[in-house]
Amino acid sequence: MAITSIDVARLAGVSQPTVSRALRGDPRVSEETRQRVRQAAEALNYVPSETGRSLSTRATRRVGVVVTDLTNPFYPHLVAPLHDELERCGYRMMLFTERSEDAVATERLLGQSVDGVVLTTATTESALPAELTRRGLPFVFLNRETGISGPPVAVVDNTNGGELVARELVALGHRRIAGIFGPRNTTTGQERELGFRLALAEAGIGLAEEAVFRGPFEFATGYAALSELLALRPRPTAVFCGNDVVAIGALNAALAAQVTVPDELTVFGFDDIPMAGWESFRLSTVRHDMHEMARTAARLLVQRIAEGGEGEAERVVFPPQLALRGTHAAARAD
Amino acid sequence: MAITSIDVARLAGVSQPTVSRALRGDPRVSEETRQRVRQAAEALNYVPSETGRSLSTRATRRVGVVVTDLTNPFYPHLVAPLHDELERCGYRMMLFTERSEDAVATERLLGQSVDGVVLTTATTESALPAELTRRGLPFVFLNRETGISGPPVAVVDNTNGGELVARELVALGHRRIAGIFGPRNTTTGQERELGFRLALAEAGIGLAEEAVFRGPFEFATGYAALSELLALRPRPTAVFCGNDVVAIGALNAALAAQVTVPDELTVFGFDDIPMAGWESFRLSTVRHDMHEMARTAARLLVQRIAEGGEGEAERVVFPPQLALRGTHAAARAD
Repeated sequence: MAITSIDVARLAGVSQPTVSRALRGDPRVSEETRQRVRQAAEALNYVPSETGRSLSTRATRRVGVVVTDLTNPFYPHLVAPLHDELERCGYRMMLFTERSEDAVATERLLGQSVDGVVLTTATTESALPAELTRRGLPFVFLNRETGISGPPVAVVDNTNGGELVARELVALGHRRIAGIFGPRNTTTGQERELGFRLALAEAGIGLAEEAVFRGPFEFATGYAALSELLALRPRPTAVFCGNDVVAIGALNAALAAQVTVPDELTVFGFDDIPMAGWESFRLSTVRHDMHEMARTAARLLVQRIAEGGEGEAERVVFPPQLALRGTHAAARAD
Repeated sequence: MAITSIDVARLAGVSQPTVSRALRGDPRVSEETRQRVRQAAEALNYVPSETGRSLSTRATRRVGVVVTDLTNPFYPHLVAPLHDELERCGYRMMLFTERSEDAVATERLLGQSVDGVVLTTATTESALPAELTRRGLPFVFLNRETGISGPPVAVVDNTNGGELVARELVALGHRRIAGIFGPRNTTTGQERELGFRLALAEAGIGLAEEAVFRGPFEFATGYAALSELLALRPRPTAVFCGNDVVAIGALNAALAAQVTVPDELTVFGFDDIPMAGWESFRLSTVRHDMHEMARTAARLLVQRIAEGGEGEAERVVFPPQLALRGTHAAARAD
């Protein structure tokens, strides 16, 4: 005989709906009642069937998080606060680590019956946001967005981040400047480049075409591009990288080529992941509150789900600031 | 009117059960039929309801993967091959990134209705393996195991890995040797330490008590422990670290203290994650085929699910080998 929620209700001395609510973390149930129900469920070895439950209530209390690039250390650091905040709101997180946001991902998200979705690695070409909109599944953009309007958004002011770096380089006297930017099909890649170019242009400085590279947000991108940049004559004295992992790739290429940072070359990253602060790198970069950004995305999504996906969507933009460590210096006179 | 699998069957010219099988990747359905069914499903905008399906077939074609430490870069690198191999076998992967393998995790795994579970970060104190056994849910140990027998296992020969490092250090003439080992409640931590101590003992070398540290597989563990080791007089000339991340923490502490590696200090890691090969570290470490280990775990689990959790469980142990890079050298005479 399988144990049912009615058995648990009897033992805990509450109604059956209260058992269901308590076990899915519904805030209408007091902490004390929740404890009593949990103890009763444990004593009876009762496991709530989510499969059965979702058919009856149509809410799964599950949120899908799509990350296409888990080996980029930025994302694991986003996932932890996202998980915790969703849990606080009574939602369980399911992580979808697909290779790309293709049609398969859409089918899966919908097939897995989630109440909402967090997109962390959207590209401007991705069909997923439009597909989710069409099917009426609430979602939120975290970190990256696309052109699409409608869903709530939690992002950094990437344009301003790029501007801050450009102004710092100009103030340090750099004129031969290079960029190893992120992919053009990501808003993070586009906007950081845009802000950087705009602020350089204000100072009357342009980027030479041969000093501009773009590629995935990976170590190998920075490593390969910097190796080519070091072959230019005259050599650039400063390089702005699309993110910290790209910058660390660049630092490693400089090390391999015995080019001294920051004496011979200034390097800036973006994000300030923990690794950027390691003694080996002491990377000068752009800091933002990635934990609060992740928590905000969780809250915006939960709110969206509660509203049934209707209403004005909120857009929260986090301000960046420079984190000045050891990879920048004044340009040398030559 | 909701579209059902019967509508899809009609359009594709197949039976309704064939539609279900095709959409869940059952190998009994030919690739050509699968294509036709997919096209029909797409044309009709049909989304298979897994919730409904799992109630009718009791199989969810989902596998839960438990990782308690996603910010350790070792795990994201395990997750990708695991995902791909499970997909090849017709299973979808759900990642559970809990803080620890506690009772909550058990409830969740069972509540989410998965067909099986991959445990990657089991501790010897974890209640989860016994709980899964009791409830009859098939699972596999990947990377770490516990004392429990029964489930299939895919692990590295950690003891042998520790032995290899010890013999190399002895051959290089090191006698004042230190260890920054992993946690005692993990088999990876225990066995690497055991093998290391055994092989040192064979050479008549013991570890001084003050030269032994243990801690989580994190950067901070290596950084803090090495800072203390450098204060010892006489100072150790070599240190074996529980994994690469710990070793990289140690390298950073050496850098901060201006101790030259490998001239003044030899450092060994374990795992050979991609970062170990970066120019900044050039870490000498123990290599194993982590991708094949992950794929093997996926296959062992799928086989276990097919057998209904019965039969003799396979145990696959991967051989380690030294990856000698730039952080080891002969002990200096003093």
